[in-house]
Amino acid sequence: MTTFIRSGGRAADALRPVRITRGYTIHAEGSVLIEFGHTRVLCTASVLDKVPPHQKGSGEGWVTAEYGMLPRATHTRGDREAARGKQSGRTQEIQRLIGRSLRAVFDLKRLGERTLHLDCDVIQADGGTRTAAITGAFIAAQDAVNRLLAEGKLTESPITDPVAAISVGIVEGTPLLDLEYTEDVACDTDMNVVMTGAGHFVEVQGTAEGVPFTRVEMNRLLDLAEKGIRELLELQRMSFKNESN
Amino acid sequence: MTTFIRSGGRAADALRPVRITRGYTIHAEGSVLIEFGHTRVLCTASVLDKVPPHQKGSGEGWVTAEYGMLPRATHTRGDREAARGKQSGRTQEIQRLIGRSLRAVFDLKRLGERTLHLDCDVIQADGGTRTAAITGAFIAAQDAVNRLLAEGKLTESPITDPVAAISVGIVEGTPLLDLEYTEDVACDTDMNVVMTGAGHFVEVQGTAEGVPFTRVEMNRLLDLAEKGIRELLELQRMSFKNESN
Amino acid sequence: MTTFIRSGGRAADALRPVRITRGYTIHAEGSVLIEFGHTRVLCTASVLDKVPPHQKGSGEGWVTAEYGMLPRATHTRGDREAARGKQSGRTQEIQRLIGRSLRAVFDLKRLGERTLHLDCDVIQADGGTRTAAITGAFIAAQDAVNRLLAEGKLTESPITDPVAAISVGIVEGTPLLDLEYTEDVACDTDMNVVMTGAGHFVEVQGTAEGVPFTRVEMNRLLDLAEKGIRELLELQRMSFKNESN
Amino acid sequence: MTTFIRSGGRAADALRPVRITRGYTIHAEGSVLIEFGHTRVLCTASVLDKVPPHQKGSGEGWVTAEYGMLPRATHTRGDREAARGKQSGRTQEIQRLIGRSLRAVFDLKRLGERTLHLDCDVIQADGGTRTAAITGAFIAAQDAVNRLLAEGKLTESPITDPVAAISVGIVEGTPLLDLEYTEDVACDTDMNVVMTGAGHFVEVQGTAEGVPFTRVEMNRLLDLAEKGIRELLELQRMSFKNESN
Amino acid sequence: MTTFIRSGGRAADALRPVRITRGYTIHAEGSVLIEFGHTRVLCTASVLDKVPPHQKGSGEGWVTAEYGMLPRATHTRGDREAARGKQSGRTQEIQRLIGRSLRAVFDLKRLGERTLHLDCDVIQADGGTRTAAITGAFIAAQDAVNRLLAEGKLTESPITDPVAAISVGIVEGTPLLDLEYTEDVACDTDMNVVMTGAGHFVEVQGTAEGVPFTRVEMNRLLDLAEKGIRELLELQRMSFKNESN
Amino acid sequence: MTTFIRSGGRAADALRPVRITRGYTIHAEGSVLIEFGHTRVLCTASVLDKVPPHQKGSGEGWVTAEYGMLPRATHTRGDREAARGKQSGRTQEIQRLIGRSLRAVFDLKRLGERTLHLDCDVIQADGGTRTAAITGAFIAAQDAVNRLLAEGKLTESPITDPVAAISVGIVEGTPLLDLEYTEDVACDTDMNVVMTGAGHFVEVQGTAEGVPFTRVEMNRLLDLAEKGIRELLELQRMSFKNESN
Repeated sequence: MTTFIRSGGRAADALRPVRITRGYTIHAEGSVLIEFGHTRVLCTASVLDKVPPHQKGSGEGWVTAEYGMLPRATHTRGDREAARGKQSGRTQEIQRLIGRSLRAVFDLKRLGERTLHLDCDVIQADGGTRTAAITGAFIAAQDAVNRLLAEGKLTESPITDPVAAISVGIVEGTPLLDLEYTEDVACDTDMNVVMTGAGHFVEVQGTAEGVPFTRVEMNRLLDLAEKGIRELLELQRMSFKNESN
Repeated sequence: MTTFIRSGGRAADALRPVRITRGYTIHAEGSVLIEFGHTRVLCTASVLDKVPPHQKGSGEGWVTAEYGMLPRATHTRGDREAARGKQSGRTQEIQRLIGRSLRAVFDLKRLGERTLHLDCDVIQADGGTRTAAITGAFIAAQDAVNRLLAEGKLTESPITDPVAAISVGIVEGTPLLDLEYTEDVACDTDMNVVMTGAGHFVEVQGTAEGVPFTRVEMNRLLDLAEKGIRELLELQRMSFKNESN
Repeated sequence: MTTFIRSGGRAADALRPVRITRGYTIHAEGSVLIEFGHTRVLCTASVLDKVPPHQKGSGEGWVTAEYGMLPRATHTRGDREAARGKQSGRTQEIQRLIGRSLRAVFDLKRLGERTLHLDCDVIQADGGTRTAAITGAFIAAQDAVNRLLAEGKLTESPITDPVAAISVGIVEGTPLLDLEYTEDVACDTDMNVVMTGAGHFVEVQGTAEGVPFTRVEMNRLLDLAEKGIRELLELQRMSFKNESN
Repeated sequence: MTTFIRSGGRAADALRPVRITRGYTIHAEGSVLIEFGHTRVLCTASVLDKVPPHQKGSGEGWVTAEYGMLPRATHTRGDREAARGKQSGRTQEIQRLIGRSLRAVFDLKRLGERTLHLDCDVIQADGGTRTAAITGAFIAAQDAVNRLLAEGKLTESPITDPVAAISVGIVEGTPLLDLEYTEDVACDTDMNVVMTGAGHFVEVQGTAEGVPFTRVEMNRLLDLAEKGIRELLELQRMSFKNESN
Repeated sequence: MTTFIRSGGRAADALRPVRITRGYTIHAEGSVLIEFGHTRVLCTASVLDKVPPHQKGSGEGWVTAEYGMLPRATHTRGDREAARGKQSGRTQEIQRLIGRSLRAVFDLKRLGERTLHLDCDVIQADGGTRTAAITGAFIAAQDAVNRLLAEGKLTESPITDPVAAISVGIVEGTPLLDLEYTEDVACDTDMNVVMTGAGHFVEVQGTAEGVPFTRVEMNRLLDLAEKGIRELLELQRMSFKNESN
Repeated sequence: MTTFIRSGGRAADALRPVRITRGYTIHAEGSVLIEFGHTRVLCTASVLDKVPPHQKGSGEGWVTAEYGMLPRATHTRGDREAARGKQSGRTQEIQRLIGRSLRAVFDLKRLGERTLHLDCDVIQADGGTRTAAITGAFIAAQDAVNRLLAEGKLTESPITDPVAAISVGIVEGTPLLDLEYTEDVACDTDMNVVMTGAGHFVEVQGTAEGVPFTRVEMNRLLDLAEKGIRELLELQRMSFKNESN
């Protein structure tokens, strides 16, 4: 088994450079531009004073997400979903994943009857857009919660733990952390892992794009993912220290 | 940690009774009614002499799936998707999963430029509809392939391995195999596993519905799933011996 | 004029074998699988504690129906309406017919402000799906009403008469009862008749697919239809004697 | 049984005043404004040099129809279907009926590979819009065919017989010809009949809106309808004598 | 610069013959057929006792418009928007323009919490449909207001000024008033102007279809438009004198 | 008439600070972030080797545009159009305007049978998004054309002149250049002007949001707009000197 050579000489277990820009836009209660290498996702958190029908009168809030990709975020232009008149299955799958991931670290009772609406829009895509979206959406959510606390609308944070996500995969037999687009296309197995600050899993989604994978390979991928997410959680923590927001 | 008591005294690591009825309807090239306890899914395989645009002229075929649920397959009536004018995100997620799972065991070159279209329609739901759908769709696909071989349209089977799927989950601290609806609602972690005859994974999708899960819990769930899928693969094999089709 | 030979040597004025399975699925208040030869339709009746806007506050209930066909219920696979994003004109025409037919034998005041929602889904099609649907939907509706009476939610049945339906047509000059698919395709005139237990018509829909029809032909078709519906009404009655539900 | 008094002292077996204006608009190959009393329908016939996919390469043509109602054609404003984003079931049912009725008097082979597209738009509604539409669409179709003959694009007319339609119904026990809106709302039974010049039926659609109807009542309604349609066929003939078009 | 010769020898600064028929249909509170030459638009005004959400509880009313074109209003048949399932961008642009134009001359407070819904449907098109629609919609609106005043539902008219509209354009260097279709197609610059009785502008929309236009050309076009609109305002005034409505 | 005080003490005839960032994203053939104060629009130009049906075989190319706004680009979150399933009338109006504006400065013959697809997505909105979009789209289009020239796919530029756009309006009697959101909401008249490098108009769209405007006011607004657009054209020119792209 030979080792796959990554662009820029990146190590198999290395993240791409991560950049987190809080307060990227001015209107949203939380607004974060997150970059994993060339992948750039704008995550905004909006606080709405209403909840969906299934939560009405429950005293609980709701956390939900929507995902989109600008038509030319990719190598070749994709159709604009608004013009086509519907969101693709892929888009819906991703936004449901982001919503579940964030709800896993929210105490909806403490949030009160309001909705935290997370919008994750991909400005530029190079693999890993859903994991960047989850990692960035958490920061935007935290900023929105901080504002509610500062304004006295909340007395206690509804956030129970941080959460972040990364992709891992096996390319030509080599397990790699944080796949970029060309690696994603070439990989046999692709896994997205969402993990909390406590090191517990919220989601593990492994898919054999080519040859099915073994239990041993799965364990190697989970090890890599845990390493990467710990680094992302640390980067999230550092971004909050920089109190420019 | 006390042990959760299952309906009918079912053991934590036991499948529900599985019934496989091949040739359930007369028109389709493959037609299987599969039952996991009260869950009943009709899986049909249709052979179409055309391929989607992305495969045209490639010499390769395609395998795809659609999933639906009759409005009153469930405890309370759900909206009819055809009347609402769109498929839900859940429906699209499931049918994409079924399609990927089946493609993982097909050699598309050997299939030739034709499409195998799998329709999985839930007649009655009691948890595990997507895993029953995958397990049944494989049988319907095999029947359709057998017909193509018998008619001389194929000289070699494009199927490389059988595939089956099961759900596992942790309910009140107890890992359970093959969740029924009430268990699915109560579980903290829910995992769907798709595995081939060779014991390799095609998909592993673990989701924390409540408390996030640990690596140890994940391993116990994978053990359970492997056990269940091996039993399903054996039931598939047995269904083919009964040459009533 | 020679006589058309039917499959299985069926007489021109004979129904196909009819099978009625009550309690076919477990969740619905009424659930009936009805088979006219190879045509198989699952009819469920759901009781909903709300009425459409036009009946709100009227003290009256509503009876409505939806119709669907599984994609591979037919010889060649049809598009899934949920995936296409709309119901065809044919589907809407049939579900409106089923709804009107059932409302004709309901006293909506006695039903109270609730909706009886009938879902008729074709599992396998071989002609006559709409007439099987009406005939089966009546049984499902009766079962749902019986349950409301047994639970004390109704004190008096809102059903005023039974209702059933059959197709008739002229094929190569011969009037035939209960057309199967190949006869339906070949017929010059096709008529669907819906009749009550009292022998009165709820709907008569005659269509010249080829040569227009005369008054004399129409009368012969109505005679045939009356004969067939009387037999169906008797089969409905017998199905209620068998109290397995 | 007392006799129902009609507006304007109209006899039970009398049509409303019928006005036929050929050449009502200038662009269409055939363009007819037809009025049955206050009901006004604009019927245009467009000749298109293409056929739908199911007729391609068959050497045969196609005749099809679309129906619409202006939002304020009725007493209270109805939603605009284009704004709602879909045609109602009623609209689709009516346009399918118009299309079948016209195809019944066309020899599609003689039409050649072209489509005759009939648009029937209700400018003002007072009952009987679908029967006025069929009666007017025939005239528009004849005008379009005449133009094709005059231009030498056809050498022989594809029209085999004229066709017209009328509604009949039983209101308070009295069978009435050509129902206006208030009668339509009050009637127990409503029947639409489409008949050719030869006196044969193309469509008979009887519906019990209230009490189901007997065979005797049905015969009385058919007698009335035949009388009315013979008068409409004569009016169509007369309109062609007036060669203003 | 040569002068463009118009059909029928019309002068460059002349309107086409304008015909205004009030009370064209019977159900609407205001109903006007307006004709600019061959262009014919039916404008109805409906009074609805409700307002859109953004006006609820404000004590103010609303004025809105919808626009449509019959499929064969044009030289070649256009798709029916209701059948296609959506309104074109052009349709939406025009109906928004009509709504804004009418609201500019309404005092919404005086209208009270009701909606005046204007429907403008093009029966025949030959250029200038949007300007005919605005000019006719004002008359329909005035008729509906007059009825509300006569019925005592309003004590003071909410209309503050009349409004009318015309198109102007430059064809082969010649500024023309009230473009018909062939001129519209040939023109370099096309401008639609909406003006009130006081001679003030509500909308000025100039578009270079070919060569961009200069400030001087724009002024010549505005002069022409002012002249034409003053004539239309006079024709509106005269139509109200003819108290047939 | 008192003078309206603008935020930051901006002069009535001053543009907001304009920032142009070429090469903002990496995949598109042209990619420009343009900022008018807080308004930020990402404009990408994609070169596609196909043309829409109406241009096929003409030897000519096509230039078209789509416009979108991120849900939280605004003060309060707007619905995501892709989720609602259709683009608003406003969106369609704007993207049609952008497309027309760019086509006005393109020689489609020289472009050859390819499409230049401009996507304008609003990242942050503070008034003037459509004028920023047009101004930025021109730069993106120029960059894409430069690449085609550099690659030898074009031998001559199809661009005939630069184009830019600005909004002007009257707020409390004061004509203002380049309205920001709070000014836009407060203004009586709002005008968008699109002008070429030669100083000719491509579009002039004036709308009275409150009181209709006079010819004198219109002229003052056009003067202001011309001044602003000349400055924007100069900024475009300068951006091309900075050959970082």
